[in-house]
Amino acid sequence: MQNDIIFGKNSVLEALIAGDREINKIIISKNIHGDSKLNKIKDLARENGIVFQFAAKEKFLPYAEFNHQGVIAQISPIKYKDLDDFLDEKHDNASVVILDGVEDAHNLGAIIRTCVCAGVAGIIIPSRRNVQVNATVEKTSAGAVNHIPIIKVNSLVNAVQKLKNSDWWVVAADAGAKDNYYDINYKDMNFALIMGAEHAGVSKSLLKAADFIVKIPMLKEFNSLNVSNALSAIIFETVRQKMKN
Amino acid sequence: MQNDIIFGKNSVLEALIAGDREINKIIISKNIHGDSKLNKIKDLARENGIVFQFAAKEKFLPYAEFNHQGVIAQISPIKYKDLDDFLDEKHDNASVVILDGVEDAHNLGAIIRTCVCAGVAGIIIPSRRNVQVNATVEKTSAGAVNHIPIIKVNSLVNAVQKLKNSDWWVVAADAGAKDNYYDINYKDMNFALIMGAEHAGVSKSLLKAADFIVKIPMLKEFNSLNVSNALSAIIFETVRQKMKN
Repeated sequence: MQNDIIFGKNSVLEALIAGDREINKIIISKNIHGDSKLNKIKDLARENGIVFQFAAKEKFLPYAEFNHQGVIAQISPIKYKDLDDFLDEKHDNASVVILDGVEDAHNLGAIIRTCVCAGVAGIIIPSRRNVQVNATVEKTSAGAVNHIPIIKVNSLVNAVQKLKNSDWWVVAADAGAKDNYYDINYKDMNFALIMGAEHAGVSKSLLKAADFIVKIPMLKEFNSLNVSNALSAIIFETVRQKMKN
Repeated sequence: MQNDIIFGKNSVLEALIAGDREINKIIISKNIHGDSKLNKIKDLARENGIVFQFAAKEKFLPYAEFNHQGVIAQISPIKYKDLDDFLDEKHDNASVVILDGVEDAHNLGAIIRTCVCAGVAGIIIPSRRNVQVNATVEKTSAGAVNHIPIIKVNSLVNAVQKLKNSDWWVVAADAGAKDNYYDINYKDMNFALIMGAEHAGVSKSLLKAADFIVKIPMLKEFNSLNVSNALSAIIFETVRQKMKN
């Protein structure tokens, strides 16, 4: 199987901690100073019998655009999860985030990171018309990609239908909605939150399938929240509701 | 005065709409298709007597890293606001965001964008140890930088003291806090929210000066929310409280 290359201390460290991908080799620049993260990387590599090498900084030149911090790893690609397998598991007051056409790798990385912090159970992306998990996504996610199932599906409409058939509620975020996102009760149910593309928003067929459509009230007419920041506002409101009695 | 160069349709359009910076020239690639934003840019330029030129795509090669979308403008730098002037204005249930050492231009751009959407009255940054407003920040902010005062100060500690002297409450975000961010009542007061650097967090002297220290509860041990996403969660909670009766 072809290996991916991942960049940066967090990416490599979190892949080691998660431990479910095959790491072929870790390469560390001779020119970087040791710190606690680097030590942890070396310790975990030793414990797991993973080769690590020290290399001259020239070795890193091809990866200059990636902000690699002098640490890269050759690793098996992330394993996407099957939606049916996911739905077969037991979920209790769980949430998934569905991304409909998010094109920017930094946004996807930030979304994955936010979802892990907020305890989201999975992220569903379409196999086309959406950025896939690549090295930039891994890096921007600070390695969070190793801590949440990414579910790739051919059709989001079918995926939403499957979720509904399994008694998940479906919430879509749309700037034209009547309800504010905080007026929905997210407690005591499994729900999916659909976030749309940076420009086009959530597609009509998915809005139609949603049980609730919610907006974030804008206090200025400048109506242009970045998709990862919009997701953060909504998903942490659902956390707030769950934490409150 | 030396001109800045800004990149992309949103950056140029929002600078035109705000209208408080001197635009020397707008350059549009001959190779891009017209759309509603481009038409608006041309209309506003005509109305305001601003020169726009069409140029071959080669003209844009030096700016390839900026995702310029075929539109750039030569413009006077943003005018930073003076904190004393800001505090002399009347503020009623207002908020400001204080950034303590945010180093990443994309994060600053996303934060500015989120602050504008959430109706924040101003953003305070230190003149050192923080990324300044540059072309990447303008671009990532989608032009939002034109719609909110950016206040640059020599000392954040002094700035916080001035805010407190003017009866503003000060809230700092810190992962080690006891209180959750949603347990504070943000209504019926002016408040400042301090967000820390990506790695180091809010500095000790500022934590000491804060009236409240709050955290975002993490549902997974992976404790690494991006600063712009953390800000979004907290600031929209304050919006939620203000909108609710």
